Amino acid sequence: MDKQVIGILGGGQLGRMFIEAAGRMNVEVRVLDPTALSPAKQISNSDKHIDEPFTSSEAIKKLADGCDVLTVEIEHVNCDELAKIESLGLAQVRPSSSTVRLIQDKYLQKVYLAEQSLALPEFVGCDSLDEVVAAGEKFGYPFVLKCRLGAYDGRGNYVVKSKDDAASGFKTLGEKMLYAEKFVPFTKELAVMVVRRPSGQVATYPVVETIQRDNICELVYAPAQIDGDIRQIAMKVATDTVSCLPSGSAGIFGVEMFLHEDGRTVLVNEIAPRPHNSGHYTIEACHTSQFENHLRAVLDLPLGSTELKVPNAAMINVLGGQNGMQSVLDPCLASLEVPGATVHLYGKAGAKPARKMGHVTVVADSALQLRRRTDLIVGKLSNASDEERERLAYRKSQEQTTDGSVNDEEKKDVKHMSPLVGIIMGSDSDLPTMRPAAHILEQFGVPFELTIVSAHRTPDRMFEYARSAHTRGLKAIIAGAGGAAHLPGMVAALTPLPVIGVPVKGRCLDGVDSLHSIVQMPRGVPVATVAINNSDNAGLLAVRILGASCPTYLDAMQNYMDDMRVGVEKKIARLDVTGWKDY
Amino acid sequence: MDKQVIGILGGGQLGRMFIEAAGRMNVEVRVLDPTALSPAKQISNSDKHIDEPFTSSEAIKKLADGCDVLTVEIEHVNCDELAKIESLGLAQVRPSSSTVRLIQDKYLQKVYLAEQSLALPEFVGCDSLDEVVAAGEKFGYPFVLKCRLGAYDGRGNYVVKSKDDAASGFKTLGEKMLYAEKFVPFTKELAVMVVRRPSGQVATYPVVETIQRDNICELVYAPAQIDGDIRQIAMKVATDTVSCLPSGSAGIFGVEMFLHEDGRTVLVNEIAPRPHNSGHYTIEACHTSQFENHLRAVLDLPLGSTELKVPNAAMINVLGGQNGMQSVLDPCLASLEVPGATVHLYGKAGAKPARKMGHVTVVADSALQLRRRTDLIVGKLSNASDEERERLAYRKSQEQTTDGSVNDEEKKDVKHMSPLVGIIMGSDSDLPTMRPAAHILEQFGVPFELTIVSAHRTPDRMFEYARSAHTRGLKAIIAGAGGAAHLPGMVAALTPLPVIGVPVKGRCLDGVDSLHSIVQMPRGVPVATVAINNSDNAGLLAVRILGASCPTYLDAMQNYMDDMRVGVEKKIARLDVTGWKDY
Repeated sequence: MDKQVIGILGGGQLGRMFIEAAGRMNVEVRVLDPTALSPAKQISNSDKHIDEPFTSSEAIKKLADGCDVLTVEIEHVNCDELAKIESLGLAQVRPSSSTVRLIQDKYLQKVYLAEQSLALPEFVGCDSLDEVVAAGEKFGYPFVLKCRLGAYDGRGNYVVKSKDDAASGFKTLGEKMLYAEKFVPFTKELAVMVVRRPSGQVATYPVVETIQRDNICELVYAPAQIDGDIRQIAMKVATDTVSCLPSGSAGIFGVEMFLHEDGRTVLVNEIAPRPHNSGHYTIEACHTSQFENHLRAVLDLPLGSTELKVPNAAMINVLGGQNGMQSVLDPCLASLEVPGATVHLYGKAGAKPARKMGHVTVVADSALQLRRRTDLIVGKLSNASDEERERLAYRKSQEQTTDGSVNDEEKKDVKHMSPLVGIIMGSDSDLPTMRPAAHILEQFGVPFELTIVSAHRTPDRMFEYARSAHTRGLKAIIAGAGGAAHLPGMVAALTPLPVIGVPVKGRCLDGVDSLHSIVQMPRGVPVATVAINNSDNAGLLAVRILGASCPTYLDAMQNYMDDMRVGVEKKIARLDVTGWKDY
Repeated sequence: MDKQVIGILGGGQLGRMFIEAAGRMNVEVRVLDPTALSPAKQISNSDKHIDEPFTSSEAIKKLADGCDVLTVEIEHVNCDELAKIESLGLAQVRPSSSTVRLIQDKYLQKVYLAEQSLALPEFVGCDSLDEVVAAGEKFGYPFVLKCRLGAYDGRGNYVVKSKDDAASGFKTLGEKMLYAEKFVPFTKELAVMVVRRPSGQVATYPVVETIQRDNICELVYAPAQIDGDIRQIAMKVATDTVSCLPSGSAGIFGVEMFLHEDGRTVLVNEIAPRPHNSGHYTIEACHTSQFENHLRAVLDLPLGSTELKVPNAAMINVLGGQNGMQSVLDPCLASLEVPGATVHLYGKAGAKPARKMGHVTVVADSALQLRRRTDLIVGKLSNASDEERERLAYRKSQEQTTDGSVNDEEKKDVKHMSPLVGIIMGSDSDLPTMRPAAHILEQFGVPFELTIVSAHRTPDRMFEYARSAHTRGLKAIIAGAGGAAHLPGMVAALTPLPVIGVPVKGRCLDGVDSLHSIVQMPRGVPVATVAINNSDNAGLLAVRILGASCPTYLDAMQNYMDDMRVGVEKKIARLDVTGWKDY
C-alpha cells in the first residue's frame, strides 16, 4: 500500500493491533521493545525488530535508521531523542516529539488545554506540601493529587480526604512533580477517539462511555447511552481538544472526559497520543478501526470513515486474575457462545492480576441486545462483582425459558439507555390516553422518552424538538393530539423520521375531528395514523418500525402476536367448557 | 485460547487470513509452504514454519510432529500422507483426508453428491475421445469438458462447441481423468460458506452472488440480490451439501451453486474444503469471519454466529495487471477514500496479471449505497470494462453535484436489487391510486415489488404473502384497499412488519368507508394509515421507516423536504413578481 517503513516505540498490545492493521495493508513496521517476542513482534515475521528499551537513545536512533516514520504506542518515551531525529530529518515523528512531551507531563498538558480555552477541572501545580495544603483550601476536600509524569490506570493518583491527609498524599506520590485537581462531581466518564493528519484535518469517532473498576477500564459502551445532544457536545470537545494540539500532531488520540452531574457540562480529563483502550471496539464496530486510522494518519494517507457500522457495541477488558491464565480463559470461552462477540488475546505469557491480557468486543442490533450479550461475559470476569455474577446466572436461566419478553430487571436497564422513540402530547390531559403507548414500549424493552410538546402553546419547543429528533438518536416519534390536532402533522413537517399520530377523542365529534386532522395530510408529508384513542397501537407500530431493521424487536413482535393467539385460544377453550350461557 | 497447535498445508492468502484469526485468539499455527516468507508466514513470527512443498510426505510428517491438528488452505495436497497421519494418530486431520480426497477429484465429488440426492448439473466421466463425443450426443452442444483434478479459476475447463470441437477439447485437457457436464442455463452464480464441527454440527453463512470475469471471481455481493425465498433454498442446498459429507469433515467449506434460469432451481457446482474467496467479505461483514470459524471448527470449539452485522457488503478482488504493482495499488488507493471500504493486501511480491494480490471489502447500509461505493473502486481495476470505467466517471461527477437524488441509471440498478418494500392492492383497478407510491419509491431508489393480493378473492395468497414477507427480506408493506378495505389490517395481523394502509376512495362515501376500515384497528394490531387516495404519502412513509435505521434514506428524505421548501419559495417569488391578480 505504501513504501514508507514505520518504526514504533513500544511493542505491547497496542502495537500488536497496530501491526495487524499494517499487515492488512502490507505496510512494514519495525518494533522497538525490550521484550524479544513482545505481543507486537509475535505477529510480524521480521528480523528488523529491535529488542531494546524504547527509552534508549541509541536504540531509537537505530530504529530511525531505515524507517521513514516513527510513532509510539506509549507516551512514556524518550522525547529528547525523538526531537533530535526530527531536527536532523532522519524520519518523520508522528505524533511530533513536542506533542508527546506536552502530553507526557499531565500538568503541562492541562496548562496548554486551559490556554486553548477548553473546559477542564480546576487544577494547580504543587511542588511543596504547603502548596498541597493550599490546594485543599482552594478546592475543598476531597481533591485529587496527581503525579505529572508516568501515571496510568489510577496509579500516581491520591485522593486527599482532609487537611490531615495532605502530608500522606504528598509523600505517597514522591514529593515532587505533582499537581492538584478539584474533584469533579461527574455522572459518567466519556471518551472519544480523534484521528488527525499532518495537515491538521481530523476525523472523530463516536462518544463512548467507560466504566472503571479499581481504576482500570472494565467496560466500554459505544455509543454512550446519553442524550444525543450531549453526545454532540462531547464529540465537539474532543475534536476541539485534538485540533488545538501543536502543528505536526498527527496520529490517533484518545480524549477522556467527565460528564458533570449537571448533565450538560463536559470537561476534558486527559489525552492519550496513541491508540487507546476506549477505542478497541472500533475494530469490529466501525468502518475503519482506530489502528488503521492511526496508520493512515502517520503515513499521511486519506483518513477512513469513523462511523459505527453496527447500532451498538461494547468492549470488555480481560485482565489476569488470582487463577492466572484460567482467569483470562473463562470470559473468553464464554464469549465463544455469545453471538457478536470477538475475542482478542494479546499473547502475553504472565497473567498477573490486573494485567491487561486481552479484550472481547461485542456488537448488537440494540442496546438491549448488547446488555443481554455482555452480561454473559462480564459475569465470568475473575473480579466480577456479586451483581455481575447474579446477572450472569439470571441470563443463563433466561436462555432456558425466554419467550423474548422483557422482565422487570431489564426494564430498569432500559431506562438508562438512549431513547429510540419519543412520545409527545399537547397537554398532560392527554396522558391517560397516551400512557398505553409507554406501557407497550416498556413491555418491549424499547428505550423511550415521554414529554409534553404543544403545537399551539409551545411552538418554539415543538420546532426544536422535531428538528433535533433524528440527530438526538430517535428513530420514531409518537404524537397524540385531540381536536384541531396539529401536533403530529407539524412535527412530521419538521423531521425526516416516521411520525405516528394518535387521534385523541375530545368532548364532541367522537374523535373524528382529530382523526381527520391527523390522517388527511397533504401530499409530501405523511403521518402514520392509528385508531382513535388507540395509543397501544401507536406503541406497537413504533416497535414494528424498529423491528424492520432490528431483529431483537422483530422477534419480540412475532412473540407478542403468538401470545395474542394463545390468549384467544384460552378463551375459546373456556367458552367451550363454560358454554355460551354461563361464560 | 487453546493449547492445541495447528499445522496448515499451504501458506498463501487464505493461510494468512487464517493466521490473522488465530493470532487474535493466540493460537499457534505452523505453516508448511515451499516459499520462505509466504503471505501466511509474514504475519507469524515463528521458527517452526517449514519451507517445503505441501505435497511432500516428509514435510507433512515433519509438520504433524509437534502439531495437534492439521488443516489445509488448498485441496491439492498429498492425501495419502494425511491418511497415514490419521491412521497413526499423529494428529487430527480436519477436514479429514477422505473428505479432501473426495473433493480433490471433482468427478468423484459429483458422484458422491449425486448419490446423496443433491441436485447437480448432469455429468458423465470421459476417459476416451469416444466418450467425449457420446457426452456431446447425450447433453447437446455446447457442453463443458473438465479435468477431474487440479482445476481452478476456469483452468482445466473446455467448452466443447460442436462434435468437431470434441477432439480439440480432449487433447487440450490432457486426454485423461476428464468428465463432461451438461451446460446449465443459469442466471446467477451463488455461493454459501458452511462451517462444520467434528460432531457434524453446522452453521451456514448468507447466500452471496459471485460475478466472474475471465473465469476469475471479480465481485461478491452479500447477501445475493435475489428473492428471499431463493436465498433460503440456496442456504438449504449448501447446508445439505456440507452436512452429507463423510463424518470427520470438520472445517469451513465453500459451496458454489448455479441459479437456473427458471428462477427456482439451485444446482450445486462444486465444493471447496477450506476458506473460500466468496467468503472474504465475512471478515468485516459478519459476526464471525470464515477464518475464525474455520479455526473454531478445527479446534472443536463452539461455532460463532454466521449472521451479517451490516445490511449489505461486497468483496472486490484485486489482481495483478499489465502495470504490475500499480495495477494493484490503483483500486486500493481509491478504496481509502470510500467510506466502509477495507483493503487487504496479501504481501505477494510479483504482481503478475490475474494473480490474486489482495481484495477490498465494502460495507453499506443499503444495496444502493453499496453500489455507489463499489463503483468507485471497480472502475479502478486494471481490467475494468468500459462500462465499469464509465460508472466510475459518472460517480465522480455525482460527487461534485449530488443532492442525494437517484437518477435514471441508478433506477435501473435498483430494479435488480432485492425488494425492501412490497406494494399490494386488492385489484388492478386500484393501480392508478397506488402508482404514486411506486413512483416515490423509484424516485428514492428503494427496491420494491408491486403486485395484486386480494383479501377476499385470494385469501390463501394473502396469507402466504404476509406470512413470508419478513423472511423474504421486506421491511415494510404498503397495502391499498377501498370499501370494506380489509387487506391492510389482515396483512398486519399476519406479519410483524409495519403495514401502511392507503384508503382508496370508492364510488360512494368518499373513501370514508375505507379510511375507517383501515385506521380503526383493534388493540394489538396497528395499521399506519395515510390520507384517502394519498399513496404518495404511503411511499414517503415507507422511505421514512427505512430511513429510521438507514442513513442513505434518512438523508434522501431530508433532501426531499428541502426540495419541497425550495419549490414553495419559487412560487412565492413568482407570486411576488406576477401579483395575485395575474398569477
